[in-house]
Amino acid sequence: MTIDHLFQQTLEANLALPRHGLITFTWGNVSSIDRGSGLVVIKPSGMPYESLQACHMVVLDLDGKIISGTCRPSSDTATHLALYRCFPEIGSITHTHSRWATVWAQAGRELPVLGTTHADYFNGPVPLTRRLREEETSSDYEQKTGEAIVELFQQNKLNPMAVPAVLVASHGPFTWGRDAAEAVLHAVVLEECAMMAFHACQLNPQLPPIEDHLLDRHYRRKHGASAYYGQKP
Amino acid sequence: MTIDHLFQQTLEANLALPRHGLITFTWGNVSSIDRGSGLVVIKPSGMPYESLQACHMVVLDLDGKIISGTCRPSSDTATHLALYRCFPEIGSITHTHSRWATVWAQAGRELPVLGTTHADYFNGPVPLTRRLREEETSSDYEQKTGEAIVELFQQNKLNPMAVPAVLVASHGPFTWGRDAAEAVLHAVVLEECAMMAFHACQLNPQLPPIEDHLLDRHYRRKHGASAYYGQKP
Amino acid sequence: MTIDHLFQQTLEANLALPRHGLITFTWGNVSSIDRGSGLVVIKPSGMPYESLQACHMVVLDLDGKIISGTCRPSSDTATHLALYRCFPEIGSITHTHSRWATVWAQAGRELPVLGTTHADYFNGPVPLTRRLREEETSSDYEQKTGEAIVELFQQNKLNPMAVPAVLVASHGPFTWGRDAAEAVLHAVVLEECAMMAFHACQLNPQLPPIEDHLLDRHYRRKHGASAYYGQKP
Amino acid sequence: MTIDHLFQQTLEANLALPRHGLITFTWGNVSSIDRGSGLVVIKPSGMPYESLQACHMVVLDLDGKIISGTCRPSSDTATHLALYRCFPEIGSITHTHSRWATVWAQAGRELPVLGTTHADYFNGPVPLTRRLREEETSSDYEQKTGEAIVELFQQNKLNPMAVPAVLVASHGPFTWGRDAAEAVLHAVVLEECAMMAFHACQLNPQLPPIEDHLLDRHYRRKHGASAYYGQKP
Repeated sequence: MTIDHLFQQTLEANLALPRHGLITFTWGNVSSIDRGSGLVVIKPSGMPYESLQACHMVVLDLDGKIISGTCRPSSDTATHLALYRCFPEIGSITHTHSRWATVWAQAGRELPVLGTTHADYFNGPVPLTRRLREEETSSDYEQKTGEAIVELFQQNKLNPMAVPAVLVASHGPFTWGRDAAEAVLHAVVLEECAMMAFHACQLNPQLPPIEDHLLDRHYRRKHGASAYYGQKP
Repeated sequence: MTIDHLFQQTLEANLALPRHGLITFTWGNVSSIDRGSGLVVIKPSGMPYESLQACHMVVLDLDGKIISGTCRPSSDTATHLALYRCFPEIGSITHTHSRWATVWAQAGRELPVLGTTHADYFNGPVPLTRRLREEETSSDYEQKTGEAIVELFQQNKLNPMAVPAVLVASHGPFTWGRDAAEAVLHAVVLEECAMMAFHACQLNPQLPPIEDHLLDRHYRRKHGASAYYGQKP
Repeated sequence: MTIDHLFQQTLEANLALPRHGLITFTWGNVSSIDRGSGLVVIKPSGMPYESLQACHMVVLDLDGKIISGTCRPSSDTATHLALYRCFPEIGSITHTHSRWATVWAQAGRELPVLGTTHADYFNGPVPLTRRLREEETSSDYEQKTGEAIVELFQQNKLNPMAVPAVLVASHGPFTWGRDAAEAVLHAVVLEECAMMAFHACQLNPQLPPIEDHLLDRHYRRKHGASAYYGQKP
Repeated sequence: MTIDHLFQQTLEANLALPRHGLITFTWGNVSSIDRGSGLVVIKPSGMPYESLQACHMVVLDLDGKIISGTCRPSSDTATHLALYRCFPEIGSITHTHSRWATVWAQAGRELPVLGTTHADYFNGPVPLTRRLREEETSSDYEQKTGEAIVELFQQNKLNPMAVPAVLVASHGPFTWGRDAAEAVLHAVVLEECAMMAFHACQLNPQLPPIEDHLLDRHYRRKHGASAYYGQKP
């Protein structure tokens, strides 16, 4: 894949977010990485989606040095870079303030697996980061946010490819995938699951998560060597 | 009706699901059966609705043998076939992950009859299947799902034509009807009833179901020999 | 106003209901009365809104005798006629199964006055009918529904022009006004108020109704001799 | 800026309210002030947004004397003028009955800071006015509403530029900003925050507000000398 192709994919993924109803104003962004060169393409900060074009996208290396582009990159860039550095299999990341996922993040609760819709995409609960300490918000805040996500996955031995989403406490969701289309897909699925889980919990406050065998069955319908959902490539 | 006509009806019914707001991505499907030949037409697995055409539809016999079509059939095909085999009057089936019906399925609660909107279409609560056992999810899972629906109706002496819908525990709704348009109609009605019942229960947690005489009156306004709703055919 | 004009107004009011998001399928109807001749124009039963035209409207007298039209009138016609007979100032009636108003009707709770939006249009709570007895649902059900509404207003000395809406228990809302546009206006306002009251009650379960002086002030901003909202006619 | 420019900005801001889904019928208005001349431009009362044009806008001085325009000004005009007189830095005000913000106003609860979305725009809770006394609703009601807002900010030493929104008890929200676009921006953000805070409170009834250091960090990302969100002007 050429870097031009990555630009185009990332632009299209950014534009897909408001089309899926996940965006208010400029709240959200998608980035992608070219693993060969280690270059990351990301949406410019605070740029309205209506006027976003490929020429506005910013290219950085994994240390955050701007390689090309005249716009400022997303203010969340350092979070994206922290994830790319520690999750070597991911190719793209989204961040939104989508309503239902953000409700769970604000409530300080991980998203439990309450149905097969969730199990079809996330092989376990979508975890919640710990709250950042004052010294973490006061300096390199966005990088510390990324490090808290990485810490959460490492301490709980979570595979970011099996659970491609996280809720940042008091803030909102990040999702990722092998490419930009998959990262956006996971953002939409997370929002649907968060909406349904909220109401299922209201209707049945003692609701336990679904059984492991049902979770496994559904996850494997769509993932891994024995997947049988969809058409042959 | 020719098989071509059945293809066209089933295609249109599939396309009606996202138009009614019941579908995210590829989650859902409609099938129809030609009772004369015993042939079933069903949506292909994981095919986006935007690109779905009649030529993609798959034809199977009631044992699941593919008769025509180059696509893989819906991964839920075995559930559809189990229902066609045991509910001889039904001509079409839908499956969706529509938000409000899925909330009830995830919460593990049947949908009670809380208003006349429900009574106009479903002559009793929309029942909830039991959870499947591990040996049922590990092999022939989709067929076992269908068998659990049939078992639920048989054990509770429910008439699938009087209650043309079910909630599969932890999963979501299936609805059916004499033809594809009616199956879709029931999917939409179920979603409306599930939304309103959720909120009525929140507002009045001790809310009992409506009286049998009111349920009967409304059901018979639209069904049976004494129906008087709508225009003469 | 000519009867042609009344046809046109009533048709337009019927078509306004789905445009305001109050209608699923064919659930709902608007009628109007010409008080001079005592003739009522009403939507035909079960007619899809997309294909509704002026020529489909049915004209009846106040005893329910069809004067013109080849379609069956709405199955709720007898409820409309009962209201026209006993509420002499009303000129038009709507019935819908709009989601939030129906939630309150199903929950068996009147809609309290929790904010000035409600007070701007309804000079008190929107009342709830008693449940009908079995002998009332078994014969002349729709007329008995209308009589229960009239009984509710008479026993509670409610002025139907000051509170132009009612919740029929387990069923849904009826609203009315001097003409068809006003009846639809009240249907939309009721839905907004029902949505907001539901959530305000969840957020503050002990929430009392607003003070009488605030209710009066807002109601009189828009109604009566001292109204000062809007432009001079 | 010419007064023509102010007319155009205020018209466009009024038309933006229904486009953002904050308006039912004619409920809501935007005004702007030209601080040089002390002239205020405001939407006419009860005018449908579909037919609103620049020529309908009304110009008043800060005492409420109409300077130009043939329409009646918004019935909420005296509330706007009271805010302009006491909050010298604000250039525009909106009022709506948007659903989620109104839910909090009706429930009689200030909107707490439960997430970074809120902190990005409002440097603290969105406060709630006290209820008006009978003598305040009976005379100069709209002016008394404005004075109650000013009293709330003064008694609690709130900076209206740091918290550019208020919930009027039992009524609904007012928001403001340096210009009309910013006032509308704050109306939309308030609605999003109110929606998410409602549900976060349901999911976690003991939920505390976010930490001050996180609130400060997010507020300063977008405001003040060290802001780094968005593009350089």
